[in-house]
Amino acid sequence: MNPANDFALQCPLPLRDYPVITMAHGGGGLLQHKLLENLFWPAFQNPLLAEEHDGAVAVLGDKPLAFTTDSYVVRPLFFPGGNIGTLAINGTVNDLCMCGARPKYLSAGFILEEGVSMETLWRIVQSMKSAAEESNVQIVTGDIKVVDKGKGDELYINTAGIGVVEAQALSPSRVQPGDAILLSGDVGRHGVAIMAVREGLDFETTIESDCAPLVEPVMKLIGSGVEVHCMRDLTRGGMATTLAEIARKSGFRIHIEEKAVSVAEGVRGACEMLGLDPLYVANEGRFVAFVAARDADRALSVLRSEPSCADASLCGSVLAENNPIVTLKNNIGSTRILDMLMGEQLPRIC
Amino acid sequence: MNPANDFALQCPLPLRDYPVITMAHGGGGLLQHKLLENLFWPAFQNPLLAEEHDGAVAVLGDKPLAFTTDSYVVRPLFFPGGNIGTLAINGTVNDLCMCGARPKYLSAGFILEEGVSMETLWRIVQSMKSAAEESNVQIVTGDIKVVDKGKGDELYINTAGIGVVEAQALSPSRVQPGDAILLSGDVGRHGVAIMAVREGLDFETTIESDCAPLVEPVMKLIGSGVEVHCMRDLTRGGMATTLAEIARKSGFRIHIEEKAVSVAEGVRGACEMLGLDPLYVANEGRFVAFVAARDADRALSVLRSEPSCADASLCGSVLAENNPIVTLKNNIGSTRILDMLMGEQLPRIC
Repeated sequence: MNPANDFALQCPLPLRDYPVITMAHGGGGLLQHKLLENLFWPAFQNPLLAEEHDGAVAVLGDKPLAFTTDSYVVRPLFFPGGNIGTLAINGTVNDLCMCGARPKYLSAGFILEEGVSMETLWRIVQSMKSAAEESNVQIVTGDIKVVDKGKGDELYINTAGIGVVEAQALSPSRVQPGDAILLSGDVGRHGVAIMAVREGLDFETTIESDCAPLVEPVMKLIGSGVEVHCMRDLTRGGMATTLAEIARKSGFRIHIEEKAVSVAEGVRGACEMLGLDPLYVANEGRFVAFVAARDADRALSVLRSEPSCADASLCGSVLAENNPIVTLKNNIGSTRILDMLMGEQLPRIC
Repeated sequence: MNPANDFALQCPLPLRDYPVITMAHGGGGLLQHKLLENLFWPAFQNPLLAEEHDGAVAVLGDKPLAFTTDSYVVRPLFFPGGNIGTLAINGTVNDLCMCGARPKYLSAGFILEEGVSMETLWRIVQSMKSAAEESNVQIVTGDIKVVDKGKGDELYINTAGIGVVEAQALSPSRVQPGDAILLSGDVGRHGVAIMAVREGLDFETTIESDCAPLVEPVMKLIGSGVEVHCMRDLTRGGMATTLAEIARKSGFRIHIEEKAVSVAEGVRGACEMLGLDPLYVANEGRFVAFVAARDADRALSVLRSEPSCADASLCGSVLAENNPIVTLKNNIGSTRILDMLMGEQLPRIC
């Protein structure tokens, strides 16, 4: 059979509406979700992938392991609070944490553009070394490819990671009515830090990315005996998209109180200037945890005892309503629906 | 400290000789080796990485696991005998096999260039699905990033893989004098297949890549009880570079008989026309196995019983000589040294 006909016959309609890949297919929002749903998941289908989690949990031998990957294409390579190397370590470490796993081993694959300066590569690799040490993970295998000048953008990094699961299964399907939702800190800093550099914006104080490893707070939370049902880090698409995905997968309505969602003043100002909603802006060191209602206060104090989560808050709850949406009650008392990010808000944020 | 000074102070001299990355840094030869040796390995140092293997073997729980990664940047995306998707599955599957592991789980990270056709992506993903099924592996986690038009080359794929080790430790350090060296089939087909398409060469018969999974022959060899000391697939840099690396790491001289190294007639002709040495041309479905001398004949018949290795040969041996070089006795009886690939022979071959 002619492969072209094959495509026309088998390709589902939502894909044929987009004959080519657009930036929004990589934005972590609705269009990316459609691409996964219509192209990748049907092709690669298996029970582990069907969890649609940040990583897969599998039992090989006597221990459940978590396995995850991300490619990093952030622009610019260096930004206040980090660089592509720190992101590549912390991002994958954090995805393992979100599976309730203690990160152990990482792989690192580099796609270098011909002509990238050795010093740039050197500085990034040194940052990766420090970030790996901070989270006590080892980079045990790797790969280097070089592409012609004009076929890359200095460098792209892929990391994959393996961790040992220390928590009971964490999954949106374990989210239940009554669950309390904890937010680990203020939102929107990573996206705004990147945009500020890219657009050459000059604020009174530099806004730094929140890029940070989550190993300590997550392991402490799990070790405390709090009944955790689900955790997710708030990366591409921001807090709103992450919550919308969890609502969709759990089947229940999620309700958030805006007053419990902290946004730094500089971030709020920058978002107003740039026309962004901080709830949709990417973070690289923030997460939400869904915990049993009775454990909410204890979970909050465990989180707050970690310096990186000192501003953690109880930001909402899961309602006993079979309606997979997210609602936000704002500071003046009205309620709106938070949907998944449409289109592409901030390209190449990570 | 100023990071620029930091670089000048700490960067080892061999790197400072190359202020920017060149294509040869990705060629799998000597310059790539120097980059690993001077930049990556010192930064990420740990015992698993120090093995310098295609993958890392670690014990997590009661079973030793193999972990590996590769990024794929081959140009063109489609070539006789495969495409970037089949390469991305088989390449990582084969790296796990070379660790003596049965491949189980893969991750897949896509870097898509804005504007790449949905049909291209679709066809590649369908090939990945088939290749994964053939090797009985599951793609359990993944990631999609999109970069601006002109910042990629349609698409790049990274795969990482986990397998369960079923063999005794395989490593160049276990290679010993007297070991027999088995070659699983003819060499040079992948590189020539790619070059033929790229250069628009028209041969009487199309030369197809040898791209294929090695799970069956490798698992059969391991299961047969043959004492295997080391295995390596012959990818970038070809058979010569792979053997030179093993010689360097084992400390012993490796000797090869050219008459036992099969090169298809079309491949030989194309290599002469293109000025290539088939021993340095990349393969994607060939490997060498170092086995105890007493098991050589048995190992050879095990391999030959697999259709993909019907042309396997006993191509050389390890000499009792503390001289980490590779020598080749050619068909007219003279001997030459096979060194690691210098520079970049075939860019973006995988």
